[in-house]
Amino acid sequence: MTGAGAAIGIVDRPPISVEAHQSAILQAITPLAAVSVGLASAEGCVLAEDVTAAVSLPSFDNSGMDGYAIQAADTELSSERTAVTLPVTAEIAAGDTATYRLLPGTAIKIMTGARLPAGADAVVPVEWTNGGAEHVEIYRRVDPGNAVRRAGGDAVAGETLLRQGVRMRPMQIAVAASAGRAAIRVRPRPRAVVLSTGNELTEPGTPLVPGQIWDSNSYMLAAAAREAGALADRRSVVPDDPAGVLPALQDQLAHADLLVTTGGVSMGGEHDVVKAALQELGTVTFTKVAVQPGMPQGFGTLGEDQVPIFTLPGNPVSAYVSFQLFVRPAIAALQGADDLRLPTVRATLAAPVRSPEGRRSYLRGVLGDGIVTPLSGQGSHQIAALGKANALIMVPEQETRLPQGDTVEVLVLP
Amino acid sequence: MTGAGAAIGIVDRPPISVEAHQSAILQAITPLAAVSVGLASAEGCVLAEDVTAAVSLPSFDNSGMDGYAIQAADTELSSERTAVTLPVTAEIAAGDTATYRLLPGTAIKIMTGARLPAGADAVVPVEWTNGGAEHVEIYRRVDPGNAVRRAGGDAVAGETLLRQGVRMRPMQIAVAASAGRAAIRVRPRPRAVVLSTGNELTEPGTPLVPGQIWDSNSYMLAAAAREAGALADRRSVVPDDPAGVLPALQDQLAHADLLVTTGGVSMGGEHDVVKAALQELGTVTFTKVAVQPGMPQGFGTLGEDQVPIFTLPGNPVSAYVSFQLFVRPAIAALQGADDLRLPTVRATLAAPVRSPEGRRSYLRGVLGDGIVTPLSGQGSHQIAALGKANALIMVPEQETRLPQGDTVEVLVLP
Repeated sequence: MTGAGAAIGIVDRPPISVEAHQSAILQAITPLAAVSVGLASAEGCVLAEDVTAAVSLPSFDNSGMDGYAIQAADTELSSERTAVTLPVTAEIAAGDTATYRLLPGTAIKIMTGARLPAGADAVVPVEWTNGGAEHVEIYRRVDPGNAVRRAGGDAVAGETLLRQGVRMRPMQIAVAASAGRAAIRVRPRPRAVVLSTGNELTEPGTPLVPGQIWDSNSYMLAAAAREAGALADRRSVVPDDPAGVLPALQDQLAHADLLVTTGGVSMGGEHDVVKAALQELGTVTFTKVAVQPGMPQGFGTLGEDQVPIFTLPGNPVSAYVSFQLFVRPAIAALQGADDLRLPTVRATLAAPVRSPEGRRSYLRGVLGDGIVTPLSGQGSHQIAALGKANALIMVPEQETRLPQGDTVEVLVLP
Repeated sequence: MTGAGAAIGIVDRPPISVEAHQSAILQAITPLAAVSVGLASAEGCVLAEDVTAAVSLPSFDNSGMDGYAIQAADTELSSERTAVTLPVTAEIAAGDTATYRLLPGTAIKIMTGARLPAGADAVVPVEWTNGGAEHVEIYRRVDPGNAVRRAGGDAVAGETLLRQGVRMRPMQIAVAASAGRAAIRVRPRPRAVVLSTGNELTEPGTPLVPGQIWDSNSYMLAAAAREAGALADRRSVVPDDPAGVLPALQDQLAHADLLVTTGGVSMGGEHDVVKAALQELGTVTFTKVAVQPGMPQGFGTLGEDQVPIFTLPGNPVSAYVSFQLFVRPAIAALQGADDLRLPTVRATLAAPVRSPEGRRSYLRGVLGDGIVTPLSGQGSHQIAALGKANALIMVPEQETRLPQGDTVEVLVLP
């Protein structure tokens, strides 16, 4: 093997672990600059500030139900049999910003969310009354504070509601809106550009000549990057033209926060044009990672702005697994977050599996009810099986086979 | 209570179950018409056809590694000590569409993915050779078929690769691309329009007068609908103007496959303008569902095209829970799928919880490591707690309290 390595100009270093490669990537990534975005565009962005309550929430005492604002003491004798009757002196709808005052021995009709009138200390729900318009009969005794939402009951002024580093999901957007924020400072969704390389690739929808296959990687990885929170686009296939690859990549730098290529990085030497073109620059490191699939990995930066670039292997399954292990956490890191690692569960193997010695395998499987079933067709080019998988079965580096019934760690696919 | 109901014109029917309301919704929904979309836009759409392999995948025998195409029999005597040397007669790169023929006793250099030359039955990986250009020394015996990917090894022509009803995620997009499909027939992402109603609502970013709150529902639910796969937009807050609500909703029909409103549907009678406006039409049913939060629900259709409309309660927590229980599955149904129900897990309660009798509660909680911790601030208006939740704790209808340590069902939030 040393001979072969020397012949094609590669110094054989022992492969590094998945975790070591992940760490190297995360250390090299600088979060994107924070920008202010309107709340309607904030979904998927990561907060670059703490969001605090500028005022107490709610900012005023209000009714938690439709009913009547009263003084609780006036209902002391109320029961189904001995209703207390109070005159209704006004009606307050939600959104009514006028000021009302309740006199003892009277009631004011009030809607859910409407401001509690001064002098009132409780609300009788309409269901406990006859619903009267001029006088109301009250059939139950009401405690002070009943159905009243106090000012500050949700949050007090100055309270931190959302912390920097939180990804803005629907609930976080609701919290920011309810605190009155029309815009927030965030690290935006990274703009990812995905390019497949290889003379063997042709666009789906065009006729196939023996020797060619249809490009799937760029479609797949652009979709995967969007799923992980990026704004992602694919570009046309880049041919294996040594002079053309670097310009094709550099063309993307103006509108990319992250570049992902597939293909052109194996051990074949002169045909691996991506590797050849980037190795010359010295800003991209090509590494063997002790993983199956996905051993040949490249990562570094390109251009003045040091745009991170991942050169993933060309086999579709290798490209997919590499994306989930290495690119996904990098998208989070560009946003100053650490929330995109895939969740792991433990499950029972429904069938035996094999794995190469010294490399951690991620085998495609179907997970359900604590059981994970390895799919047939585990070759790196066998994409049909990938379409059925919902999990990756981890086989540790030191294991070459695991029997049916063993407990394994499983990555749950998004 | 009968008296109160009669007074405000509501016939008291017993509340229906969550499942009964879900079924009524799903039965009323007609899937969107299928359209053809380009693969780059297909993510999140649901297949309306089966995708089959038009040709075998791969369509030709090819090399699984960088190395030399040979006849395996020629390596019978190869070993580290007695290398077999073969003349190298050609080189085939990936994507080379010329036709090559291997003669016995010779080798052809070949790259990963390149078409296997006629006459060859195996590939020697470059690592098992000296990597020679004119002659190659082979240090290991190779079995027939070694490192060869057979035509049809991924899928045979005619094989069904993806079935109708599957949601197009990155892996499914990869499968369609690898089968050469530039476009597929799908049911598209539904276009959802979200409107908050209520005089008490004002836009975030504007000053707040006592009696008013900032609108959060429309921002939250538009984001939640996008997260569930819809194309969603919010509209400005609709005021409680009995004459204005219906026109405001009808204005949206031309560009909505689904309408969601919040507010204006409680028990308060004349102020519930959404309910009043839609009840007149007779195409929307207002129902009490035995759930907390989210008891008052409205669902039906609007306009000639029978656009589904959900009228959710106005409290933000009620609106959020209602969305996840009722609107989310409806988005899937519009796409002819059934994949948007939230996953359920069993977990141990870290603290006791309470629930109203006869209603199923969904309490906000934090789930981790099989333990679920109820959050404080479970009021329907208490949105701050919602921002911390990642799960909803289900308390069954017949339970009014559950002790710490009980096992509960938990909905995992997206």
